[in-house]
Amino acid sequence: SLVLSSQRRIPELSSFVARTNTCGELRSSYLGQEVTLCGWIQYRRQNIFLVLRDFHGLVQVIIPQDESAASVKKILCEAPMESVVQVSGTVISRPPGQENPKMPTGEIEIKVKTAKLLNSCKKLPFEIKDFVKKTEALRLRYRYLDLRGVQMQYNLRLRSQMVMKMREYLCNLHGFVDIETPTLFKRTPGGAKEFVIPSREPGKFYSLPQSPQQFKQLLMVGGLDRYFQVARCYRDEGSRPDRQPEFTQIDIEMSFVEQTGIQSLIEGLLQYSWPSDKDPVVVPFPSMTFAEALASYGTDKPDTRFGMKIVDISDMFRNTKVGFLQDALSKPQGTIKAICIPEGEKYLKRKDIESIRKFAADHFNQCSLLGKLRLECADLLEARGVVLRDPALFSFLWVVDFPLFFPKEENPEALEAAHHPFTAPHPSDVHLLYTEPQKVRSQHYDLVLNGSEIGGGSIRIHDAELQHYILATVLKEDVKLLSHLLQALDYGAPPHGGIAIGLDRLMCLVTGAPSIRDVIAFPKSFQGHDLMSNAPDSIPPEELKPYHIQVSWPTDSK
Amino acid sequence: SLVLSSQRRIPELSSFVARTNTCGELRSSYLGQEVTLCGWIQYRRQNIFLVLRDFHGLVQVIIPQDESAASVKKILCEAPMESVVQVSGTVISRPPGQENPKMPTGEIEIKVKTAKLLNSCKKLPFEIKDFVKKTEALRLRYRYLDLRGVQMQYNLRLRSQMVMKMREYLCNLHGFVDIETPTLFKRTPGGAKEFVIPSREPGKFYSLPQSPQQFKQLLMVGGLDRYFQVARCYRDEGSRPDRQPEFTQIDIEMSFVEQTGIQSLIEGLLQYSWPSDKDPVVVPFPSMTFAEALASYGTDKPDTRFGMKIVDISDMFRNTKVGFLQDALSKPQGTIKAICIPEGEKYLKRKDIESIRKFAADHFNQCSLLGKLRLECADLLEARGVVLRDPALFSFLWVVDFPLFFPKEENPEALEAAHHPFTAPHPSDVHLLYTEPQKVRSQHYDLVLNGSEIGGGSIRIHDAELQHYILATVLKEDVKLLSHLLQALDYGAPPHGGIAIGLDRLMCLVTGAPSIRDVIAFPKSFQGHDLMSNAPDSIPPEELKPYHIQVSWPTDSK
Repeated sequence: SLVLSSQRRIPELSSFVARTNTCGELRSSYLGQEVTLCGWIQYRRQNIFLVLRDFHGLVQVIIPQDESAASVKKILCEAPMESVVQVSGTVISRPPGQENPKMPTGEIEIKVKTAKLLNSCKKLPFEIKDFVKKTEALRLRYRYLDLRGVQMQYNLRLRSQMVMKMREYLCNLHGFVDIETPTLFKRTPGGAKEFVIPSREPGKFYSLPQSPQQFKQLLMVGGLDRYFQVARCYRDEGSRPDRQPEFTQIDIEMSFVEQTGIQSLIEGLLQYSWPSDKDPVVVPFPSMTFAEALASYGTDKPDTRFGMKIVDISDMFRNTKVGFLQDALSKPQGTIKAICIPEGEKYLKRKDIESIRKFAADHFNQCSLLGKLRLECADLLEARGVVLRDPALFSFLWVVDFPLFFPKEENPEALEAAHHPFTAPHPSDVHLLYTEPQKVRSQHYDLVLNGSEIGGGSIRIHDAELQHYILATVLKEDVKLLSHLLQALDYGAPPHGGIAIGLDRLMCLVTGAPSIRDVIAFPKSFQGHDLMSNAPDSIPPEELKPYHIQVSWPTDSK
Repeated sequence: SLVLSSQRRIPELSSFVARTNTCGELRSSYLGQEVTLCGWIQYRRQNIFLVLRDFHGLVQVIIPQDESAASVKKILCEAPMESVVQVSGTVISRPPGQENPKMPTGEIEIKVKTAKLLNSCKKLPFEIKDFVKKTEALRLRYRYLDLRGVQMQYNLRLRSQMVMKMREYLCNLHGFVDIETPTLFKRTPGGAKEFVIPSREPGKFYSLPQSPQQFKQLLMVGGLDRYFQVARCYRDEGSRPDRQPEFTQIDIEMSFVEQTGIQSLIEGLLQYSWPSDKDPVVVPFPSMTFAEALASYGTDKPDTRFGMKIVDISDMFRNTKVGFLQDALSKPQGTIKAICIPEGEKYLKRKDIESIRKFAADHFNQCSLLGKLRLECADLLEARGVVLRDPALFSFLWVVDFPLFFPKEENPEALEAAHHPFTAPHPSDVHLLYTEPQKVRSQHYDLVLNGSEIGGGSIRIHDAELQHYILATVLKEDVKLLSHLLQALDYGAPPHGGIAIGLDRLMCLVTGAPSIRDVIAFPKSFQGHDLMSNAPDSIPPEELKPYHIQVSWPTDSK
């Protein structure tokens, strides 16, 4: 089923435009060819040669020195760095000994005949070189300059290629239909994180959806059978690092499918679309229950690139005389757990132990303490030179059998959906719904990569009565807001399920980028600002009138 | 360059799920195979057989009559129409003489062994049959049922396939990079049609962009070289038929390109992605200047499927004695024009002539009168049985050399951008910018199909000084709002240009759908409402508080 991929031809990068070749593609095999190149002046030395750059790479251009080419020389010597030029000339060998093996085009250079200054560049706020350190604020403000760097070009191009391969897999190999769903929708129950959009009807608002969840389920009711979309989603979380108010997910839904079907589909999808410069993805991915993940890793998204699992050592202390251990064990389900740091004695210094102790004290009341300590200790060990997490390793893991409900934080007597209210209960736990709903496991599954959750999905409820019971009786939601969905389930809804993969986070892990802002062309800052264009911005009150809204200024600023 | 397309394999439509085959794929070649099918009960006769439907087609299922299969019979006979069932059985020949040549699966039927009721269907608001007429309001309210129809399934699947082929052409064949740009942006100057989104900062608003215009130009400045995106765009036009508040465009931008390059690219794109069940697209497309389009067709989007061009007959009346004709000719640039209706005498009745006369009177002051009359007469002729516009004909046309500016409607002394302020002037007219800007032609081009504008684009201004002059001096815009773009042009912007194709309208023409709502899965009504979910909807005032806005209720409703 990898036919399309292996037969992929190299794209024509110079079709339809004013160049014959890209700067980066020229090799010895092009010797003697007349070429026209367009690019940016990256570097110039002693008015003898310059290095021209385009998205594809660098090439050395020889500035003609003879009198007859004075005008060409003038253009190429006077243009400021980062000016845009077009040059035509011949591909020639570099003189023996002057080849540059570090440069893919290092065996050749261009003997220029004509040159044209396409655009001159003013003094830049920073140099377009990857080793030049810039603050993130400066990078975001001049994003169009930051994008010229090799790393950003690689990240955005790899993202485009991976998404294209995912589409081939879904569309061409498995018959999925790419369907666009609306982003002007209405608030979902409990949709406190949804942006609102005033309409021209007084008091009526659209809402930007957090995911196409309802629409994709309705598409299954509509008999579309296999849906996918590279879907823009929106979540208003105010300022949170490494979250973006708009983000992208590979959104998938299938009819007549069970959990294992979705899992195989996704394993195949990632295997098919995985970059060829990385180790191939091995399938199937291992699977772990939510309970096991919590017990062994202290988190529902275990980083399985290394061991240091949490172990229960209660039995060693059954007869202990130590007071606080006795106390712990005497409590119902009281246990004593530990993690073993391999060669910790050898690598960890006294101040490391102190920092671990402090970290533990700071997080003492959290049940995930040992999970966090495990990662903290891994960081400490790696800071001491131990390689715990191989940077070339991509460790995928399914986490399954989540609880269907969690107690509400503000009112632990009440329950809320652990993921969303459309998740189907585990078949063996359905009877518990009516007696002990807090014990019901769900058919939800998370996909974890190197300790980050990169996707999640579930088999959905297709029975209207069950859906109504969970919404109204268990969750105490206003069912009127979802009447269209409940009605749809009554009209011949097929069993169905799906998943969404967080594309930004996936690309961040694949490229090894420090932040999701490095895999997004125009990201917002921590505060949700576009530092380049200055969005969000003020709007004159008269432009708000058609929307029947006015600003309520905070009283202290009046 | 059509390698990928011709080698496309048939997708696996039953991978990962509970069926072995789709209902629609079974033929005589499957005889004797054990199959499992999932689908909807479309039809049942005399408890002897039923017709099962999935997205792929229909198949006949024989209900077992023997005692031992009583439970299977009960399930299949008692399930209401449109219930979802799973059946397993053997593909057998229909008895001789009972084949149905109108049905692709008409030679076979399924001898059922087991059956499972997956979901029962309640009484439907309308039947799922294409011949059943429904009002549009009913279709939109129960969109998930409407989607089960053959035509909607075809439209959405063809749309997905055409977009996929466009992506192959752009990404795999020509090295374009698929880049997502933000939809939370800020208002552009004069962006009265942009939805606003309140942020959590008092008085600060995001805006939903009408197109990724600024971002795609900034990507060119960022050296991305070739960008495309299937971009969601937003325009708040209140209630207008056949416009949607959110719509989709194939958005393209290239560096180092001229007008002919973009045109060849798009011709190749449409040729490559054109559905194989239609006549192939012939390239290159003919081209016509704006002036010629107006003169010969009375519109800038001529329907070139038929003649009936506007002709100048002034010379015939140079010596006329008829007063109103003399008057017309005596005015500066006064002309007399006509269209000739072929065999009009034969086909048009007296009341047709009357209706033409009335139409002309109603539109008398519009310079496009003859263009409108031409279409009106074409409708009349076709109503009388003349085939003027071949339904299988797709007549593409480039319209070029638009004016760069138009006089403002409310103040004809002032100029506004004919398309947008980033459009480059025609090279031969640049000098006129500083003396007679109203005479400057632009490097804008429109793509017209069968009389509808389906795309438009231009070569952009890459010179900061020229862009500043046009914004500040000619258009009198506040340049501060676009300072990031002006600055970007100063920092080594390459010459660039692009285009956007309106996907909804293109698909509407390709499928022959009566409305763009027939090529969109979940469209809004004329009034911008989602009739299924009831969006836009009211929001409690406390949920508006975080956004520092309140509703200004119109005074008469207080």
